[in-house]
Parts: sequence; C-alpha cells; structure tokens
Amino acid sequence: MKTLTVSLGPRSYPIHVGRALVDRADLLLPYLAQPKVAIVSNSTVAPLYLDRLAEPLRRAGIDVVEIVLPDGERFKDWPTLNTIFDHLLQRRCERSTTLLALGGGVVGDMTGFAAACFQRGMPLIQVPTTLLAQVDSSVGGKTAINHPLGKNMIGAFHQPRLVLADTDTLNTLSDREFRAGLAEVIKYGLIRDPAFFEWLEEQLENVLSRDALPLAEAICRSCQNKAEVVAADERESGERALLNLGHTFGHAIETGIGYGEWLHGEAVAVGTMMAAQLSCQLGWIKAADLSRVERLFQRAGLPVLGPTLDVDRYLDLMQNDKKVQGGHLRFVLLRGIGQAVLSDAAPLADVRRAISARTADA
Amino acid sequence: MKTLTVSLGPRSYPIHVGRALVDRADLLLPYLAQPKVAIVSNSTVAPLYLDRLAEPLRRAGIDVVEIVLPDGERFKDWPTLNTIFDHLLQRRCERSTTLLALGGGVVGDMTGFAAACFQRGMPLIQVPTTLLAQVDSSVGGKTAINHPLGKNMIGAFHQPRLVLADTDTLNTLSDREFRAGLAEVIKYGLIRDPAFFEWLEEQLENVLSRDALPLAEAICRSCQNKAEVVAADERESGERALLNLGHTFGHAIETGIGYGEWLHGEAVAVGTMMAAQLSCQLGWIKAADLSRVERLFQRAGLPVLGPTLDVDRYLDLMQNDKKVQGGHLRFVLLRGIGQAVLSDAAPLADVRRAISARTADA
Repeated sequence: MKTLTVSLGPRSYPIHVGRALVDRADLLLPYLAQPKVAIVSNSTVAPLYLDRLAEPLRRAGIDVVEIVLPDGERFKDWPTLNTIFDHLLQRRCERSTTLLALGGGVVGDMTGFAAACFQRGMPLIQVPTTLLAQVDSSVGGKTAINHPLGKNMIGAFHQPRLVLADTDTLNTLSDREFRAGLAEVIKYGLIRDPAFFEWLEEQLENVLSRDALPLAEAICRSCQNKAEVVAADERESGERALLNLGHTFGHAIETGIGYGEWLHGEAVAVGTMMAAQLSCQLGWIKAADLSRVERLFQRAGLPVLGPTLDVDRYLDLMQNDKKVQGGHLRFVLLRGIGQAVLSDAAPLADVRRAISARTADA
Repeated sequence: MKTLTVSLGPRSYPIHVGRALVDRADLLLPYLAQPKVAIVSNSTVAPLYLDRLAEPLRRAGIDVVEIVLPDGERFKDWPTLNTIFDHLLQRRCERSTTLLALGGGVVGDMTGFAAACFQRGMPLIQVPTTLLAQVDSSVGGKTAINHPLGKNMIGAFHQPRLVLADTDTLNTLSDREFRAGLAEVIKYGLIRDPAFFEWLEEQLENVLSRDALPLAEAICRSCQNKAEVVAADERESGERALLNLGHTFGHAIETGIGYGEWLHGEAVAVGTMMAAQLSCQLGWIKAADLSRVERLFQRAGLPVLGPTLDVDRYLDLMQNDKKVQGGHLRFVLLRGIGQAVLSDAAPLADVRRAISARTADA
C-alpha cells in the first residue's frame, strides 16, 4: 500500500493506493466520528464489494446503513440524490454519521454532494472502484449533480476525510470503463507532467493489460499530480482550472448527446483532441505533438472524433461552462506537451474550425 | 443608516440597517463581481419592491435577471429551488454573477442555498424584507431547503457579501408576519442579552406599533447579537447552537403540522415556551421567570401553546433534529433569562411532561 497526502492544513487527508483495501476496516475506523456509517453504492458495484466493505465494519461494532442507487450517469440527478436523503433520514443518520461512497465517479460525485448538503455537511470517505474515480474524481473535493442544461452544474466543494483506492477492484471493470479512465490519466501528462506522458507512451500496453505494478504507478502518479494542484488551489481560482483540459468540449458532448451515452472519459478524450487541435491551429503546439496526443488516445482505445453535433450546438452548450466569464468562452489549451494554459485568446472562427476538424462527419 | 459588521476575516461583511435602502443601488454596486445580478423574490414581495431595487441597478448599467417564486414555506423545496437554477442557466448567469435575495426567510434561505450550489458557489447579497429575515435568517450564512421528513435538512453554510435591511419594508408586513419575527428578537434577549430582554419588556408596544426608532433599535440589537455569535462560531461547533433555542420543538411543529401552516416565528415562540417549561421543571429557572417569558410572548401576540400533536409524534419528529448526537436529543435550555445552555441532561419523562404542559389539549 502506498499513501499520498492532499495537503489542506487542518483538512489534509490521505489517499491509500493498494490491493485488497476494501476489506480493511482497520483503515476506515480511525476516521469515523461516531460508530455509524452510511455506504452509498450502485446496483453494479454493490453485489461485488458492498459486503466485503460492510461486514468487517459490522464486526467492529459499526452500525452500517446501505444505500444502493441505480447505475449510470443519467441518474446523477436530483431525484436520485434525494433517495440518499430519504434513506439518511429514515435511518436516523446524524450530522456526525460518516457517508461513504463506494463506486465510480457518479456515485462519488453524488455521495459527496449529499455529504456536503445533509444537515449542512457531514463527514465523507471515498472508496473509488473505477480507474476514473481513483485517478481523478474521488480526490479534491469537487462534488456535483447534473442539470438538464449543464453537466455538474449544481454542486459543492466538500473534501473527503480519506480516499481508499483498491486497485484490485479495477479487475472487474469493463474494458470500455477502464479505457475511459485512461483519458484522465493521459490528461495529467499533457497538463503538467511531460515525463509521465513519455512514461505512458512507453508503458501503455502494460497499463492496458492491468499489470499490477505499472497500473499502481499510473494511479499514484495521477493522484500525486491531482493532490499537488488541489493543495495549491482548492477552490479553482487559478491553476486548478487546468485540470479541466478537454472538459469544456467534453461536457458539451455529454450534455448534447444525453448523459450516459458517451462515458465521461470518452468525451474528455475527444474534448482534449479538440483543445489540442485548437492549440495547433493557433501555432502553440507543433503538428507532431498533436499527432503524439492523438496516437496515445488511439492506442488507449479512446475516440478521437466527436459525435455528429452541429457546431452551433456545440458553441451553445459550451456557453454554460463554469469557466465562462463575462459571456466569453475560456479554454484550457496547450503550449506544449506537459504545459497547459487557460486562455480566452482563441478567435471564434478557430474554435469552430477545431470542432469541425474533430467531429465524425468532418 | 447604521452599519454593523459580521467579522469573519476575509469573508467579513456589513449589515446596513436603515430607511429607504432598497432604492440605494450605490450601496450594492461595490459588491458586484461583474455587471450582472439575478434577483430572486416571491409573488408577494416582487410587486412591492422589485422595480425599486432593479431600476436603479439597470440605470447603472447592470444586467438584471428577475426570478419570482411562489410565496410560502411549502415552496421551500427542491422543485422550487430548481426553478432558480433553470432561470440562471437559461439567462446565462455565471459563477461570478451575483445572486440577490429580496424577501423573507424562505426566499433568503433558498436563494442562499442556490448561490451555494450553482456552479459550486456564486456571490450572494441578502435584502431581507421581513422582520424575521432582518433580525435572523439573512445574517450568518445558514441556507437550506426543507425535506418532507425534516425542516432545513438540506443546506449549506454560505455567507453573503452584504446584508441590506430596509426597515421601511416592514410597513407592508402583515401583523401576523411582524409578530412572528418578534419571536426571534425576544430569543436574543433570552439567550445572551438580559438587558435587551428588559428593554423589550419596556418598549414592546412601541416596537409593535412599528415606531421607527425603537424598531430600528430592536433590529440592530438583534443583528449585533447574531453577528457576535456567528463571528465566534461560524459553523455551529459550539455557542452558535444556542441560537436554536425553541427550534427543536419548533421544527417538530412545522414539520408535523405541514410546512406553512404555522409561521416559523410562531412555532419558535411555542418551542421556546416548551424549552422554558422544561428548564423550569429541571429547577434551572424560577416559575416567575417562566411567567415573564410567557407574558412577553403573549403581549407580542404570539402563541404559547402548541398544536394538538401526540407527544410521541413530537418525539419522533425531533429525532431528526440536527443537534441529535448518538441518538440522544439535545436541547437548548435556560439557566436564567439571558443565559442559555446546550444540554442532553433532560430525562425523557420531563421532556414529555414539558410538551404536554404546552400543547393546546393539555
């Protein structure tokens, strides 16, 4: 087991990465404020891991409430969130009961938001079971649900007390889900860690085959990058916005196509290609670098062309992006591999051209 | 105009109390992060004050979005909150657009929660137009909506940038609403300001007739007390819980009878009588003090007996109170007039007896 730390003063917390951690009640117990925990999971993950997590806790005298949600991005909405509140109230959970998220990004984001809001805030623990959640969404305290007009529009910053990333749980992940998670892994290399990008170029096949060592390395290196950025800019007033590389375009795909049709990581891969394309058009990166990015996504089995949406529809959807300021779109763009910048300098005509160049009917 | 300050370091903010403040765009402009503001009001308050607030802002070049909600505690729920989000997204509001609450406690609590959640947090200004909102709910950053199983169960701490309390707006308040607000005014005297309690005993009729000077004094003195408590304990880890005197019983009344049947202040008056009764039974306050409290509520035209709910129903409803810890009810009780304490020492039999003594069929 390897342990990283997200340094946020009194709200600092550890990320444990390792094998067979879901059985380790001993790692959880020191973080419970009272001997009661409510575990939120979904109908896919619960049959695999809920008992393994809950039984050792019960044997240690913890009152465990189980809340199982339907699986999928299209349930990342208010009615489903409200079922968490219903359970918490019916089962007499309190402000000092711990809420624990067991699942992927959707479960983690919703459970996190529930913990932020229930009685104005309760303790949270993240036990991510997908690659995307382990390398990105479980770390850093961003929580949210979707609104029909915009992805992750309603949410809060609410840091967990502990993140427990059991790499063995990735063995039950579908290839499609696993590959989607790789989009966020590649993102860290592109934004701020060129050596990691090169490492991925060398080791991608070993990561794809889920070899324990390279897989753990990819997860730890991603978490380390995330932890550093979050520690420097918890509330996204600066550097943290760079983590949204590919997300302005990506969220437009997810919202425009219907939540859940494209996996988040798939949309981020295409969105990153659009951002790289735009950066290349502006002369900020070389065509050879654009090709390197494209090739790595392709080797990871990720899409590099977006769905057939009208360019105007893309632009309309992007207007609700959280980075919009004074009506102006702002994009995370590349100045090189490993060097991202936030910019509103891209002319609209170039944005349109980048989208067109990277959609399936282009 | 008198100005008080809520001291919270970099998040400190002023409370302006005075006459004809809703017309004063000049007081608002320095607090807008961008020239766009979304005003949330309700169908009762909007026809009276929305234009007076919005027009001077528009003349100053501000883009003003108007959002009018239905009036009443029973709309303090998710579907109504979601209409705020719908408007914000349709009208392209951004993370740095300011949300402004124009109305009473329901409008303030919902708008505050919307500001806490929209794009994970946007700036908030409170322009309270009821006595209850001016002396209590607009100050201190507590925001929430109700859940069918519990009042204010879903919410956040989100401080405003500015509170603008125009005392002239109280002239359009119904007697019933005005008297309900007095319950929270009296509360401050009971909790921590015995001289204020005595002042109220002397001046109550002048306050009730809404004489400008005593009314402003009552509001400022209440806000001063609130500001001091919030500055000392923003997140309610200690002293701030004392502001909930009467609220454990009161919330049970509101939730049990149906939101909106009893005004919040009316429920708090009865709840405070139950807490005082319980304190008296425990020998913590004298019967003469209990009578003083009762007499002041009665002179204010507030109820001192609760609705006919079974005692078990009261107890069941109170189990979801936010102060419950480890399944144990905790109450704010009195050690004297002007001295409140948080306690779990009350035997259940005494709690039952206090409720029975203070319900209408007793």
